[in-house]
Amino acid sequence: MSRVCLRGPDVSFHAQHAPLGAFASLTLGLAGARGGLGLELGKPANQDLYVGIQRGRRDAPGELLCLPFFRASEDAASRFLVEQSAAATTASVGTQGPLAYPLSSLEREYGFGVDRFRTPDFEFVVYTPMSPLPDPSRAAAPELRASLLPAVVATLTVDNRAGTQPITAFYAQTFEDAGIRLLDAGASGRRVGFAMKSRLGVLGEVDAGEAPFLFSRFSLAEGLRDTERLHRLGTVPGIGFVIPAGEHRTLTLAFGWYLGGSVTTGVQASYLYADHYASLEDVLSSGLDRAPELRSAAERLDEVGTQSGLSLDRRFLIAHALRSYQGSTQLLKAEGAPLWVVNEGEYCMLNTLDLSVDHVFLELAQHPWVVKNVLDGFAERYSYADAYGVSFCHDMGVHNHFTPAGTSSYELPQLTGCFSFMTQEELCNWVLTAACYWAKTGDEAWRTKNAGLLTRCLRSMLARADARGIMSRDSSRCAGGAEITTYDSLDASLGQARSNLYLSVKCWATYLGLALLGIDPETCEHQAHTLGRAIAGHQRPSGELPAVLEPGSPGYRARILPAVEGLVYPLYWADTCAGPLRAKVAAWLDRAGPFEALLAALATHTTAALSDSERGNLFSDGGLRLSSTSANSWLSKIALFEHVVERYLRLDSSLDVSGLFERADRAHAEWQRRGSGAFACSDQFLNGVAEGSRYYPRGVTTWLWMGPAHS
Amino acid sequence: MSRVCLRGPDVSFHAQHAPLGAFASLTLGLAGARGGLGLELGKPANQDLYVGIQRGRRDAPGELLCLPFFRASEDAASRFLVEQSAAATTASVGTQGPLAYPLSSLEREYGFGVDRFRTPDFEFVVYTPMSPLPDPSRAAAPELRASLLPAVVATLTVDNRAGTQPITAFYAQTFEDAGIRLLDAGASGRRVGFAMKSRLGVLGEVDAGEAPFLFSRFSLAEGLRDTERLHRLGTVPGIGFVIPAGEHRTLTLAFGWYLGGSVTTGVQASYLYADHYASLEDVLSSGLDRAPELRSAAERLDEVGTQSGLSLDRRFLIAHALRSYQGSTQLLKAEGAPLWVVNEGEYCMLNTLDLSVDHVFLELAQHPWVVKNVLDGFAERYSYADAYGVSFCHDMGVHNHFTPAGTSSYELPQLTGCFSFMTQEELCNWVLTAACYWAKTGDEAWRTKNAGLLTRCLRSMLARADARGIMSRDSSRCAGGAEITTYDSLDASLGQARSNLYLSVKCWATYLGLALLGIDPETCEHQAHTLGRAIAGHQRPSGELPAVLEPGSPGYRARILPAVEGLVYPLYWADTCAGPLRAKVAAWLDRAGPFEALLAALATHTTAALSDSERGNLFSDGGLRLSSTSANSWLSKIALFEHVVERYLRLDSSLDVSGLFERADRAHAEWQRRGSGAFACSDQFLNGVAEGSRYYPRGVTTWLWMGPAHS
Repeated sequence: MSRVCLRGPDVSFHAQHAPLGAFASLTLGLAGARGGLGLELGKPANQDLYVGIQRGRRDAPGELLCLPFFRASEDAASRFLVEQSAAATTASVGTQGPLAYPLSSLEREYGFGVDRFRTPDFEFVVYTPMSPLPDPSRAAAPELRASLLPAVVATLTVDNRAGTQPITAFYAQTFEDAGIRLLDAGASGRRVGFAMKSRLGVLGEVDAGEAPFLFSRFSLAEGLRDTERLHRLGTVPGIGFVIPAGEHRTLTLAFGWYLGGSVTTGVQASYLYADHYASLEDVLSSGLDRAPELRSAAERLDEVGTQSGLSLDRRFLIAHALRSYQGSTQLLKAEGAPLWVVNEGEYCMLNTLDLSVDHVFLELAQHPWVVKNVLDGFAERYSYADAYGVSFCHDMGVHNHFTPAGTSSYELPQLTGCFSFMTQEELCNWVLTAACYWAKTGDEAWRTKNAGLLTRCLRSMLARADARGIMSRDSSRCAGGAEITTYDSLDASLGQARSNLYLSVKCWATYLGLALLGIDPETCEHQAHTLGRAIAGHQRPSGELPAVLEPGSPGYRARILPAVEGLVYPLYWADTCAGPLRAKVAAWLDRAGPFEALLAALATHTTAALSDSERGNLFSDGGLRLSSTSANSWLSKIALFEHVVERYLRLDSSLDVSGLFERADRAHAEWQRRGSGAFACSDQFLNGVAEGSRYYPRGVTTWLWMGPAHS
Repeated sequence: MSRVCLRGPDVSFHAQHAPLGAFASLTLGLAGARGGLGLELGKPANQDLYVGIQRGRRDAPGELLCLPFFRASEDAASRFLVEQSAAATTASVGTQGPLAYPLSSLEREYGFGVDRFRTPDFEFVVYTPMSPLPDPSRAAAPELRASLLPAVVATLTVDNRAGTQPITAFYAQTFEDAGIRLLDAGASGRRVGFAMKSRLGVLGEVDAGEAPFLFSRFSLAEGLRDTERLHRLGTVPGIGFVIPAGEHRTLTLAFGWYLGGSVTTGVQASYLYADHYASLEDVLSSGLDRAPELRSAAERLDEVGTQSGLSLDRRFLIAHALRSYQGSTQLLKAEGAPLWVVNEGEYCMLNTLDLSVDHVFLELAQHPWVVKNVLDGFAERYSYADAYGVSFCHDMGVHNHFTPAGTSSYELPQLTGCFSFMTQEELCNWVLTAACYWAKTGDEAWRTKNAGLLTRCLRSMLARADARGIMSRDSSRCAGGAEITTYDSLDASLGQARSNLYLSVKCWATYLGLALLGIDPETCEHQAHTLGRAIAGHQRPSGELPAVLEPGSPGYRARILPAVEGLVYPLYWADTCAGPLRAKVAAWLDRAGPFEALLAALATHTTAALSDSERGNLFSDGGLRLSSTSANSWLSKIALFEHVVERYLRLDSSLDVSGLFERADRAHAEWQRRGSGAFACSDQFLNGVAEGSRYYPRGVTTWLWMGPAHS
């Protein structure tokens, strides 16, 4: 398979290049926009990045030709035309500000681990390998140090072998905050760099010839050309190097982050990497030392994508999701124990449980212990009991603040929409996550330890349901309000929890999950059977299931694709369980088995949705619309839907599902590049534009597309 | 004497309320502007503050009437008329956003330690006592803990004794950054508050009746009126309390800051307060515990101003300067030893030596050990030798980064203006600071330890001078450039160091300072004599001295008031020296003594400048113009000038100096309030508008006006 190679306007979008567990990223790629080194931000940083060259030595008066990773100053604005037809290299000589290459002259290869920009003059490549994080309670210190490196490596390569004059290449940037310092003392003479206080920075070295030089003045051109003076008050620090005629040179850059000491409140925790690195300088040096290894690992990860057999659009969507997920992760240490957090994108809520359940497929493939860590965190501190029994909080806090035990930052009483409680939703999510963890790991000790809680979960499930098994009782925490689902910003079709089709199928899967975990299997399977039949009983003559199983509800007329979302769990168990459990799950999934009615109804419903002549579940560009009554569609959930349809549902054979999904995936990739260009990977798109859930980790449900071999 | 009471438009300007040594402030006061809790910023924070009331209980639908410490939202803009004639209380009922009181309804008492806002409905008072900091190497831990408290206390008082319905009062605010957390757990039930992560926050308690309540939603009105729900995602946290009809209540607020661990680079240092406080919560609780004592101390400091006999404008200028100085101070600990830093206002350079020399008069009155600390810091790490001998760096670094030993962040070679070296200027400044320290403390051990360095200073002074004693050799560090003076942004009249009149008189004082310190007094006094005569020899028939003692220089035609600045040092020594040294200084200052020619020339020069019929050293508003050829005038230096004239110079008796200075001081106070309203105390004013050196500590030269009793 070929690589994902983008050209023209398609090269322009932010990617969130990040190490694992540092809640940090190097975000760049959108033309004419700022980005750079963000730390605990939930959005791109606000730095101009200058990655470029000029012909001649550093004090030559040539044009400064850069990747378009900066916002043009007012002065430079007229010369900053990303869509201009003439190549920047032909622009008039003598201007002072940097020139951006027109997009037409650029190429971008966007793999799982490698993001490569090609200009007519150089290549700039950012490497983000994804390696399993070892369980800190078992791993040796050197292994942990290697895995936790809070750095990202990049290279800037100029091939001047055919040249007749030297070329000067550089990496420079601005910062939004004050506190720039130059890393010219202490580092070896071959390595120079700069930092923002002690918390983030970059260090570079060249593979041959003269060492790189450091520059710093109040502008890029002034700094680059001033061969005599390094100003510590300068605002545009940079690293430069000269490529003599006839030579080929690569500058390797290590971008790093470091926050020592306690970084959270409510629960005091520090970054686990701070146990293994002494300082930012230690991180940056280690990044350069290990650059060859990290580059190889990123290239190997790219190969996994290239060999996946997936379409270019799907590989793009996975690559994009992996990066924003990594940038949202935060591995802490609290009271001596590891504490895994995935921040909720732009909202920065800590371990939002209705996202955790979506991350589980990737996380169990990579490092199952983080799933256990999250499950335990919810069990120990973020569970509560309302009038019907146990459930779990929506999140553990927000922006590094852990909320008081038993409370989330999000949920409020007396509401019927956004910010209401998700008691039923999160109860399902915790059980389903536990079932996936159990299916994947067979961790008997964990199951035994949690049997009591799981039993309470079953009782709580039953107490919230009516005789048909459908969730019908809003949590007493709502205090007169009504529960919602994770689809909090969608309309009533998915927002209301009570009698919700999506949530009903998720409850069905939850009973099966409890059965899988050995919690009163008879009751569970009986309840699942009752509930499945109740759901199927709502099927209309047209084959559709109403989004809300209440004829009076405004959601009754809506048709939702996530009706089938709950199927993803037994499908995952079937792929991961060992021995007799696998057979049990296979029986559940048997289309002529105990859940025949439900499975048939869901297939018919989905066929109806996708074959609707009025295209109610499609956007005009072919993208998928989760609810026929809402223009708000979520890509993480679309990926689940596509996975369930492709892996399992037997839709009407007249439907060209693969063509439909191919067109949809193309549209979805465009949504990310065009509609979310400034926010890297986003989740919620309103008519193709990211209006919420931006800079978001949840897109890693796309990992399911990789198939059982990568479970 | 009455208090400084401001009304109408005069109430509107930012004051930088700050503890000592925490590089932090609560900045507020400018109508329609943001401010709030800043930490290591060098500028006001960007928070909307809501200090106000509404009639009725918290869920009543009344108007929210606030001090104008917020930027009106677009919605609210039409209702936010700070100059409107009708009182806000008469505005139409039912609007949702807060209303600001019109300035016409406000009063502000602005004393040295108390900043009191009076509205028709309540008083809001911020207290900033100024107590000497004990020497950490000698003080006991409890004394240090008390002195280092990084907190500011304020009160919000509502007198509802004549009321017939309850009033609800509140303090609430927004934050620019994400990371708000509510302080409702852990604190005693009588105290509630909120914080930004672990680094800053506010805690409040009420003096009687019901405890205050906490609120938090997405707007002030929504939070205040929602009696049921506290949203941890809220963006406008607040503290409210109810004043029943017939009652009088005060809410005391402690605003605090806390940064633990290493906070600097280059040299690793932590805040000294972090040795004495465990956390922000500890700081805030301690602030409330000690509020009565801190309020009394601030009131006593106010009395010092009220009893000073100074004009209201001068007391305003001193009060304003003290606050911005305190906000710029930073007491650190590096390698176990205290490290005193004054940040250079908006530029945040560390211990800029040409500012340190201006802070010395206040600092020696308060805590002389900090002056020794700065002197030692420059001697040990920030001195260097050029081709002519020893001198000192311009600064120790910038924005918490200590530059490499022997280098400043500011100075560069090959320049003739801003950012060039200040080798001669800083050499004088270090010696003069040392002489003041010695005069005030008689610290024989320090003098003995530094005798060698002081001797090198003398040799370096001589090596830079020509036969007349005038500085004529630019530092070899300039590498072809030319040295400048502290007046780096003024024109050639004060900017050029070589042959500069201001610097020549400062050199004269430096020789006397060395003599005072016992460093080869004969040579020093002889050199001072030679130099004094050389300066006087340049006097023109009109009585004026040229600003630059080189007929060909563009500065030759300029007339500068800081010609006399150097006299401030012997004047200070005369006030502070003990015994025989005092007699020695008195002899130097004898108008018929060894320096008769220089002293007479300076008096005649100043008379000429102030009596100029073309008012070349005055602005049209009566403010003083430091150089007749520049519109840039510096208030810290004007204070020195006024002090020297009033305390010493015998000007022509036909000159009404006191009337002239009274008008000037009125203009200068207006410059601060109108021309620097957004930046608290500033130093550089271009035609009365603060264009540089904003949010600046240097204005404490005004402390000299307090007279010898406060030296």
